[in-house]
Amino acid sequence: MSYRVGVVGASGFTGAELLRLLAGHSGMEPVVATSREFVGRDIASVYPNLAAYAGRPYDDLDHERLEKLDLVFLALPHGASMEPGARLAAAGTRVVDLSADFRLHDPASYPEWFGSAHIAPEWLGKWAYGLPELHRDEIKGHHAVANPGCYPTAALLALAPLVRERLIEPDSIVVAAASGVSGAGRGLAPGTHFSHVDANFKAYSVVGHKHTPEIEQELSRLSGADVTVTFVPHLVPMARGLLATCTARLTAGADASRVGETAAAFYASEPFVRVTQSPPETKYTAGSNACHVWAAADPRTGRAIAIAAIDNLGKGAAGQAIQNANLMLGLPETLGLSTEGQYP
Amino acid sequence: MSYRVGVVGASGFTGAELLRLLAGHSGMEPVVATSREFVGRDIASVYPNLAAYAGRPYDDLDHERLEKLDLVFLALPHGASMEPGARLAAAGTRVVDLSADFRLHDPASYPEWFGSAHIAPEWLGKWAYGLPELHRDEIKGHHAVANPGCYPTAALLALAPLVRERLIEPDSIVVAAASGVSGAGRGLAPGTHFSHVDANFKAYSVVGHKHTPEIEQELSRLSGADVTVTFVPHLVPMARGLLATCTARLTAGADASRVGETAAAFYASEPFVRVTQSPPETKYTAGSNACHVWAAADPRTGRAIAIAAIDNLGKGAAGQAIQNANLMLGLPETLGLSTEGQYP
Amino acid sequence: MSYRVGVVGASGFTGAELLRLLAGHSGMEPVVATSREFVGRDIASVYPNLAAYAGRPYDDLDHERLEKLDLVFLALPHGASMEPGARLAAAGTRVVDLSADFRLHDPASYPEWFGSAHIAPEWLGKWAYGLPELHRDEIKGHHAVANPGCYPTAALLALAPLVRERLIEPDSIVVAAASGVSGAGRGLAPGTHFSHVDANFKAYSVVGHKHTPEIEQELSRLSGADVTVTFVPHLVPMARGLLATCTARLTAGADASRVGETAAAFYASEPFVRVTQSPPETKYTAGSNACHVWAAADPRTGRAIAIAAIDNLGKGAAGQAIQNANLMLGLPETLGLSTEGQYP
Amino acid sequence: MSYRVGVVGASGFTGAELLRLLAGHSGMEPVVATSREFVGRDIASVYPNLAAYAGRPYDDLDHERLEKLDLVFLALPHGASMEPGARLAAAGTRVVDLSADFRLHDPASYPEWFGSAHIAPEWLGKWAYGLPELHRDEIKGHHAVANPGCYPTAALLALAPLVRERLIEPDSIVVAAASGVSGAGRGLAPGTHFSHVDANFKAYSVVGHKHTPEIEQELSRLSGADVTVTFVPHLVPMARGLLATCTARLTAGADASRVGETAAAFYASEPFVRVTQSPPETKYTAGSNACHVWAAADPRTGRAIAIAAIDNLGKGAAGQAIQNANLMLGLPETLGLSTEGQYP
Repeated sequence: MSYRVGVVGASGFTGAELLRLLAGHSGMEPVVATSREFVGRDIASVYPNLAAYAGRPYDDLDHERLEKLDLVFLALPHGASMEPGARLAAAGTRVVDLSADFRLHDPASYPEWFGSAHIAPEWLGKWAYGLPELHRDEIKGHHAVANPGCYPTAALLALAPLVRERLIEPDSIVVAAASGVSGAGRGLAPGTHFSHVDANFKAYSVVGHKHTPEIEQELSRLSGADVTVTFVPHLVPMARGLLATCTARLTAGADASRVGETAAAFYASEPFVRVTQSPPETKYTAGSNACHVWAAADPRTGRAIAIAAIDNLGKGAAGQAIQNANLMLGLPETLGLSTEGQYP
Repeated sequence: MSYRVGVVGASGFTGAELLRLLAGHSGMEPVVATSREFVGRDIASVYPNLAAYAGRPYDDLDHERLEKLDLVFLALPHGASMEPGARLAAAGTRVVDLSADFRLHDPASYPEWFGSAHIAPEWLGKWAYGLPELHRDEIKGHHAVANPGCYPTAALLALAPLVRERLIEPDSIVVAAASGVSGAGRGLAPGTHFSHVDANFKAYSVVGHKHTPEIEQELSRLSGADVTVTFVPHLVPMARGLLATCTARLTAGADASRVGETAAAFYASEPFVRVTQSPPETKYTAGSNACHVWAAADPRTGRAIAIAAIDNLGKGAAGQAIQNANLMLGLPETLGLSTEGQYP
Repeated sequence: MSYRVGVVGASGFTGAELLRLLAGHSGMEPVVATSREFVGRDIASVYPNLAAYAGRPYDDLDHERLEKLDLVFLALPHGASMEPGARLAAAGTRVVDLSADFRLHDPASYPEWFGSAHIAPEWLGKWAYGLPELHRDEIKGHHAVANPGCYPTAALLALAPLVRERLIEPDSIVVAAASGVSGAGRGLAPGTHFSHVDANFKAYSVVGHKHTPEIEQELSRLSGADVTVTFVPHLVPMARGLLATCTARLTAGADASRVGETAAAFYASEPFVRVTQSPPETKYTAGSNACHVWAAADPRTGRAIAIAAIDNLGKGAAGQAIQNANLMLGLPETLGLSTEGQYP
Repeated sequence: MSYRVGVVGASGFTGAELLRLLAGHSGMEPVVATSREFVGRDIASVYPNLAAYAGRPYDDLDHERLEKLDLVFLALPHGASMEPGARLAAAGTRVVDLSADFRLHDPASYPEWFGSAHIAPEWLGKWAYGLPELHRDEIKGHHAVANPGCYPTAALLALAPLVRERLIEPDSIVVAAASGVSGAGRGLAPGTHFSHVDANFKAYSVVGHKHTPEIEQELSRLSGADVTVTFVPHLVPMARGLLATCTARLTAGADASRVGETAAAFYASEPFVRVTQSPPETKYTAGSNACHVWAAADPRTGRAIAIAAIDNLGKGAAGQAIQNANLMLGLPETLGLSTEGQYP
């Protein structure tokens, strides 16, 4: 028996990755797959890689039908999940939202970072923040889960052990991260044209990237103090993969030699997070739900460096959403997910 | 219950892809994984993507142990499979050889195309040629199967419907094919250095590529006449993916409008071959065992064009080897294999 | 003293490459650079690589001003050059048109291949076809030159020696060519999105690509007979570079061993075409006006293979336009052009 | 009249780029081009892009011949320049060394960062540090110039204005930089294999990269205090290009709004450094000697961010070496160099 699930926004990159993962998932069946742009068109003609969906058209959005499903994934652009997310949460339907719309607890963050107020502020703080490695028990008992952003997933998994063990000063954190282009979605723009991106590297949204408050909120919860971070994202000429390189001053008296083992101990029983012997590389996680973490301290500079690699569409989006859904539905947490990246 | 299988040469790209696929295969367990270069080293330290193998070292080659397994995959360089392949075949152990060592039936082909004579010519012609779409029944009953080359797989799947239905003149076939760099293996050479390959495109082995006699042998079997082809391989700046673009003169009286539907009918019940509405793209097959085929005729020139796309490490190597092993072991043909390419 | 030239359509990739080359050209000064989309905007803000143009805005199109220049480059989309090209030609202003609008001599070709009739058919056949290696003298004396397409440039330079020396049968020519993505221009489309193109290879416009009649016209002129070719273009995941792989049956009695030396002799005194010892690679020509050619015969199959590599924006477009302009203006043919590709 | 110059180590990527630039330089003639590996082989057969050198073999190393030249470029691996560099400096021959061998002033730095003592410590501190934007007058008068490393060039050009104007705290500097693969040279290693690098991003030499002391030495000279930096380099899947993203705390009382204009004023008259309106992208500098700089402050975090983009083989190596040689020989500083990157 499979749970009946829906994917709303199944023609974006994240939604299509959900469909790909669900095609090989024995515990959930994607009975609904909506797309505004491609409603009625054969899914396998829009995404010829999704052969399992040949002959099946994209569905229109039908709220009543969604509410009767066992679980709904919302893979919509930021802002577009507020209304359906609030509606599903109110109906008591299990929902995993992959946008930023229910991640922040402070209503004031939405106008500040996203440019407009939240339309359902009463729900903020009532969704679980879907990073299982930090909030597994909360997710298990919840019917509404906000799936983390790709950058926050990597930055938090890199920093969490060091912040919680008070090895680093939270006010000194600098996150220089880099993502493959699929993170920008399938929309067309000069900045995602192949001829522009290929053989090119740049920083973008250098001040004010929308993932900043999410990183700060979770680091503040971890440390118990208000944390402000300097976060600089970059674009890498590759389709998938995300690396977060985090540096911070060691706390006074911190044992520099313990940084690596602290991370290893923190994740010892995690199925998807592996602490590696050498700095992680994004390619080893491609297509999987794995996160590779590495941490060390440089006694000469008094700074720690913690790095995490993920597939931005895997552990950074669709894979993590499946992981959350598995937890919410009482399925084995790893069902339908792989820790083996596709290499080379 | 799982069959106990071995992978000989499990540290090459093809062997590592076999390990990746076997990690998610419910019917076979890779109890042996050998490597000459890395014997004793943790598999997951050599291939950090293979997290499932963390803590497990590469094995040394032990022929007696291999002979007791249910099936052995030989993922060795061309030439190196002759001896273990003949030994396993003689012992009656099921074996799938991924090299060219048992693909050609004519002993004279080995000195001509590979530079030296075959050491076990008595076995030539006695192994099944492991292209299930053409030789499924033969494979099912065989214990020794020669897994096809990546280029022949794509070229044959593109051309087979047109040759068998006598829509094209076999003596006019030109195959211009292109492969990602993983096809050259993980050995180091100036020609596979990133700085050289990136943003570069070239033909190589323009006259005399080792896959030529394999294509000709199978096309000759299909057509019933001796076929000679012009085969020009190219190198594409990408890690995976292979496209074969085949052109040939239409036979006199051939109905040009029937070319596409002939291919579609030929593959109608095949689980891994899909005839697409527009020319196939390699990326849609990445990481999967899918082959996408497209064919059409140009009445103006009197030529047919047939194109096939595969992942050279999937349907072009490790995926097809699993497909053959499934058939040999009586497992469902599609077990542990995906038709959903990883995109983007 | 520098000639005063104009670039019409200077915000497309080809126009911007013309500006880049003109910034380092001592014999021409680009006093006009028009753009419909970016008129009035600083050229160096649209193309930050063009630092030499910082502070200079794109011009509006002013036909009367253009007619007074020493030479005008038209770098417009196909179809858009007809009107300004005919006007400049009528005014007697030197003009190099980089579109297909004046390349074909037969008016019937335009409706057949481009979908609509030519608006100035009286000019067809009166422009020189700007491939200097075949038509240098004609170009020198002409004021209106149609710059060849990128694919025809490579295919013709590969095939010309063999066709003219009657070593191959013109009716058996198959051209499988592949181009970097910049050949598709800077317009946005799903097919040029980085996430789609990266790690992908495909054929496109498999039947009926617009460059086909241009290749056939020039091969017919070379051979003295009506030539029909099978031309299959492909897209390579790289920004620049184009390779044409051409095969054809050797003529009866052709000396297979002479194919390579025939090409070498044909181009012995050409400044930009070099016959290489091994199959050419696009990267060695990047950013330059070089064309690398290689040819050989395969006695086993009775076919010749001729391959040419160029930078599609260099010898395939802007570089060749400068070469033509140098000839038309009486400047040294190589002025402002490089034969040294940027590698790696 | 041209100065007679030599390139020692002309078969590495940096040496080959020097040859490419010298082929188009009207003031220097490369009369010597040595290679240990390829001595006697035609330069254009090793680097087919260097058509201008066709027919010319690589030279053997002849110290006496070098000493009689007007200037010698040493493009040797780190460590290998010590002996010839000291010899040429002693002979009074003008020399530009592209290795790290004469960049550091403190002899103790060599055993600490490079693993062994310097063999000619008497020369340390007597070579000019060849970053013209900071040390132009010193370079002009010097006959021995140590060409900066690629990472230090970008990091120093990004940070110099802010450090000199005391807008940032030197002890808080974090440099997260990323380079294309050509920075690792043409040697073969698993880490530079195409199949490994493609679609991959990683940090490397996270603690203890050899460019660290060079950055610290020059920042210390600029600030007048001992500066320690956290420097984390990354590898980008592209052949050329380097970006340095630098963050630091604003000094107390620093005017955050002045950061950008400070950089703009600092470089107002520099021919190769341009302060851009938006964060720089490496591709716009490809193949040129340009450096694009951008700087801003984030009042919310109290940190400044300064970013510089270069071509690691251009302004990061061979281009800057030509710029230094122009200064040393009394030629125009920009001769033979371009500010126009090759785009796309």
